[in-house]
This record gives sequence, structure tokens and C-alpha cells, in this order.
Amino acid sequence: MTQVTIIDVAPRDGLQNEPEVLPVAVKVELIERLARCGVPRVEIGSFVNPKQVPQMAGTGEVVTALQGLESSDWSLREGTASLQSPISSLTALVPNLRGYELAREVGLRHVRLVLAASESLNQANFKRSVADSLADFSSIAARARADGVGFGVAIGASFGCPFEGHVPAERVLALAHQLIALGADELVLADTTGMAVPRQVRGLCEGLTASLKNQEPRTKNRSSEQEAAPRFSVLGSPALTVHFHNTRNTGYANAYAALEAGITSFDAALGGIGGCPFAPKAVGNIATEDLVHMLNGMGVETGIDLGRLIEASHWLSEQMGKPLPALVGKSGPVFEECRW
Amino acid sequence: MTQVTIIDVAPRDGLQNEPEVLPVAVKVELIERLARCGVPRVEIGSFVNPKQVPQMAGTGEVVTALQGLESSDWSLREGTASLQSPISSLTALVPNLRGYELAREVGLRHVRLVLAASESLNQANFKRSVADSLADFSSIAARARADGVGFGVAIGASFGCPFEGHVPAERVLALAHQLIALGADELVLADTTGMAVPRQVRGLCEGLTASLKNQEPRTKNRSSEQEAAPRFSVLGSPALTVHFHNTRNTGYANAYAALEAGITSFDAALGGIGGCPFAPKAVGNIATEDLVHMLNGMGVETGIDLGRLIEASHWLSEQMGKPLPALVGKSGPVFEECRW
Repeated sequence: MTQVTIIDVAPRDGLQNEPEVLPVAVKVELIERLARCGVPRVEIGSFVNPKQVPQMAGTGEVVTALQGLESSDWSLREGTASLQSPISSLTALVPNLRGYELAREVGLRHVRLVLAASESLNQANFKRSVADSLADFSSIAARARADGVGFGVAIGASFGCPFEGHVPAERVLALAHQLIALGADELVLADTTGMAVPRQVRGLCEGLTASLKNQEPRTKNRSSEQEAAPRFSVLGSPALTVHFHNTRNTGYANAYAALEAGITSFDAALGGIGGCPFAPKAVGNIATEDLVHMLNGMGVETGIDLGRLIEASHWLSEQMGKPLPALVGKSGPVFEECRW
Repeated sequence: MTQVTIIDVAPRDGLQNEPEVLPVAVKVELIERLARCGVPRVEIGSFVNPKQVPQMAGTGEVVTALQGLESSDWSLREGTASLQSPISSLTALVPNLRGYELAREVGLRHVRLVLAASESLNQANFKRSVADSLADFSSIAARARADGVGFGVAIGASFGCPFEGHVPAERVLALAHQLIALGADELVLADTTGMAVPRQVRGLCEGLTASLKNQEPRTKNRSSEQEAAPRFSVLGSPALTVHFHNTRNTGYANAYAALEAGITSFDAALGGIGGCPFAPKAVGNIATEDLVHMLNGMGVETGIDLGRLIEASHWLSEQMGKPLPALVGKSGPVFEECRW
């Protein structure tokens, strides 16, 4: 039976792209609720300038409030993939060294950096070249190593760029090798604007896995069992995560394609927030509950309690004052639990 | 390069499940618009009692109006999969012999029958046992053979039943063999209430294809090229079609899984109609334009003009007075045409 890790990014990528600005107390409750469902990792916010991104104001306060929680609050289901230590299951986006310092000050043990696989999107979003982003990451990586803080890197536009169109797989592969050389413990292949299609996802995931595996130092004494073990499975050594938006209704097909390519780590957002189905352009993340439901039906274990997750999604819908794009909470689940 | 056939079922399965009742003239224009996009087959309605299903009133008049069209109206793109003869590209649902006679009276050359793979759903929807449905089909099949009319059969609940839950693949396989023995030229594996998950779809489609292939008479002189040809590819001998609803956000993942299993015939509905994203239970078909977009991005040829299809979807949205679930018309397509 396959086991996968789901990272809920609703508090960051979800809320950042919604017009509503939720108060810190609501964000804290959202993250607590996710933890109580057995969600093993949460991206809790972004250490950006709150004047530029008001939705992300108070991210440090969110972490401080969560520090007060007991481990027992975070892993209520026995034998789940939930991490035992609350703080270890959190990550946050940091755009630069200043953001890293803010995250470190409140005691985060893991952060995520972000760049784009295309120059145009990197310039548009981060006002610098990809090379400059990499140079910045090098400084942050040195600090993180010294501090014992883990860091992942999200590679935006991994499957296509809204400005440049096609993004060659070779560019993503080259970046991945550079980032791992810097010490990244996680690579997030992000389909920022929902341009990916499933065969492309399968191809890039298989290609990247094979390419990184070839780089591993080989030892003659390695057992055949170790050889067969997936290269990317748990955070730390390093994880390969995929991140899909359902902008053009391909998000779940892409997640399935990634699963078939051997990927075991998935970003998703409670309720599918991050875009509104009633707005002209729907750009939400794939919904955590719909992803869990699909995985349950295929015998893939997530460690997440789907019933509670749907309750949390209904609660979030009330907090945001609108229906959310996720469907399984409206239609009713078929597969409450993994059925194998 | 793979070529697939898309059957637009918006005028039947779509409209039948919408609260709005569209006038005959609007239905005729809908079907004409689909034909002008290069959609090769359309399920234009259902010959049911209009007192019971007012949305399907006037299906005979729709066919009569379409009979007046010239072939040139139906296949505007050269080299597409569109059938040359308007009437040959149409099918309609017939619930019984009376329905068949009505379809025949207005000159339809193909009909679709329907039953369910589970006794409970067959009883609930058709007020009879599966054995009684099969006996009925036997009478209709004899008439259709005499009339030179082709018929397909949709097998509802092929991937799960809302009353019984799991539906064994063996039951679907057994039904499929019985229906082909009756002379069906098309089997439609229908996920009536959106319960399917992709690995299940792949398994059933591969299993059914292999099972039916084993039944074929083998000749020693058959060339290896013929051996390699897909068993189900074009209507007539017989086609294997899949029919998905996006009730729980698995519809497009299921379509991708079917494609990977070698399926080349897909039901879909313009706009993803057949359920409303704003209603408590969203039960729409997968949207033709979103399916075409995903296939275009993977180099799979449909013969359909996506730009025109999106225009037709906007027109349908205006006619129905509400936004439709399809996304690619809102977000903008990435892949206008098949890109290989």
C-alpha cells in the first residue's frame, strides 16, 4: 500500500490569493483544525511585507500562538503520518533573507523559498533574475545550515509560464540539481497558473526522479531492498513535492499522473481556496479533501481523517462567507477511509 | 499521434439534469453549434415521456429540424473526425421500444439504450430488473437490425452504485458480453454519480478491452498490423466509450486514466452542464472544452476547434442564464490546438 504526505497550503497559497483577510486567531484555528485531521504538514503563511500582501499579516504571531500547543493536539490518530512535534510539521514561505530571519525569530524549523523556472515570471514576481534568486538562496542556505533549519524550494512555472509558454524540462532539472547542491531538503514542482497536463507531469516527475537518482553516491554494499526504495519519500533527504492548481480542471488528473510517476508528497489547500469559482478566473489550489477522497478510493494512505477534514472545510467556508470550490463536501464522500 | 472521438451529451444528459427547460429552437442551435466546432457525435435528447422529463420534450422536432441541414454545415474543418452525414453523427437515448419507434419515425440512424450494472439502480431508474432490461433490449435489437439502425448501450453505475456501493468488475464484464451478443455497436461505461477513481477506471477499461478481444474470432492470416490495431476505435465494431461526471472532482483524472488504458471514445457535455456548482450537489458531466483542452495539451487529436467550442459554451451560458462549471473558457486556454 502506498503512503503519501499531504502538505496543506491553504493558510499561505490559499489565503494569499483570496480577497478576504482573515484575523490571526482564525488562521491559528484553521491550522489547529488541519492538525487535528491528521494533516502531516502545513504551510502556515508567508513572511512578506504585510503592506504588500495584507492577507499574510501576522504570520509571526500565528507561529507564536501555535508554539503553545501540545504535541498531543497535533497527532490525534494513531499510526498516522502526522509528525509528533507541532513545530516540525510547519513550514512558511520566505521571500528573502529578511523573511528567513523573521521565521527563525519565532522558532520555525523549516521554511520554503521560491523562484520561477522562467526568467519572465521570476522578474514579474520577484523583481530579479533567476541567477540573483539562486545567489540569495545561497546566503539563506548558509544561515539555515548554521541554524539547523531545513529549507525547501518551490520552483514556480515548472510546467509552463504565463509569459513564456512552454518551459523546457531541462531547465527545471538543472535548477533542481543546483538547489539540492545548495542543501534544499524539498523541491516543490509548482504549476503556478494551472498550465500542466497529466502526461507532461508524469514525464517531468519521472525524468527528475531518475536524474536525481543518478546523482546519488552508489555503494557496493547497498542491498537490493534499499535500491528499490523510492528516492523521495519523506521530508529530509530530499522530498519531491508537486503543487497543482485546478485553473483549467486538470489539477486532479495531474496529481494522479504524479502519483503514477512515484511522487509521494502533494501540496493541496483545504476547500480548494486560492481562487473563486464565481470570479472570471478560477485559480485555486486542488482541494485537500477532494485529493484525499480520490487517494482513499485508490487505496493510498494519507493518515488524514476525511470526515473531520470536510467539517474543517465547512467551517472555513463559514469564516470566508462563501462556498468553496471543493466538491466532496457537497456531494458526499464515497470513500471515507482508505478501502484496501 | 492518438485520435479520439468525443460525443457531446449536453443536449441529453446535460439538459435533462438542469432546472431550465430550453425551447426546441435553442436545442437545435446548440447541436448546430457543436457540429460547427467539429464535434463528431452528439447525443441530442431522449425519447422519454415529456410529462415525466419536461426538459426532453420535443426531441423528435429537434431531429426533424436537424434533418434539413446540409452535410457542409456539419463538418467545417477539413480532415477532422466529423462524420459527413449529419444524421449519422446523431444519437438519442431511448428508454424502451416505444422510444425506439419514435426515434425511428423521425429518421435517426443510431440510438442508445441504458441499463444499470446494479439491480438497485436499475429498479430505481427503470422500474425493472436487469434481466427484464436485457429482455427488452433483445426485442429492440431485433427491430434495429431489421431497420438498419445501430444501437449502443450505456451501462450506468459501471464504477459504483449510490445504493449498493461497490459494483464488481465481473458484473460489468458479463453485461458487456451479453450486450455485444445482442448486437450493440457501442458500450458506454457510465460513472452515473461520479464514484469512480482513476486506478479503478484504468483497471476496468483494460480488463474489458482484453476480455472482449479474447472473444474475437482469430484468423491465421491476420497481419501483425491488424493485431496491433485497437479493438475499439470507431463506432461500429463496437466502440467502447467512457462517460464521467465530475461530482467529486475526479472526472478529468478518470478520463486521463481511460485514455492511458487505450480508450478512444469519450462522452462529455459542453460547459460541464448537468449539475450546478452553486447547488448543494454538483453532478455535471465533465466539460467538453476542458477535456479537449487537456487532450490538446497531450497531443491527442479530437478534430474539435477549441476556440469555437468556448464561444459555444459562452452562448449556452447566456441561454441558461447562469455561469457553467467548465473552467477553460474562464481562465483562457493554454493549448488552442493539439501541439505536436
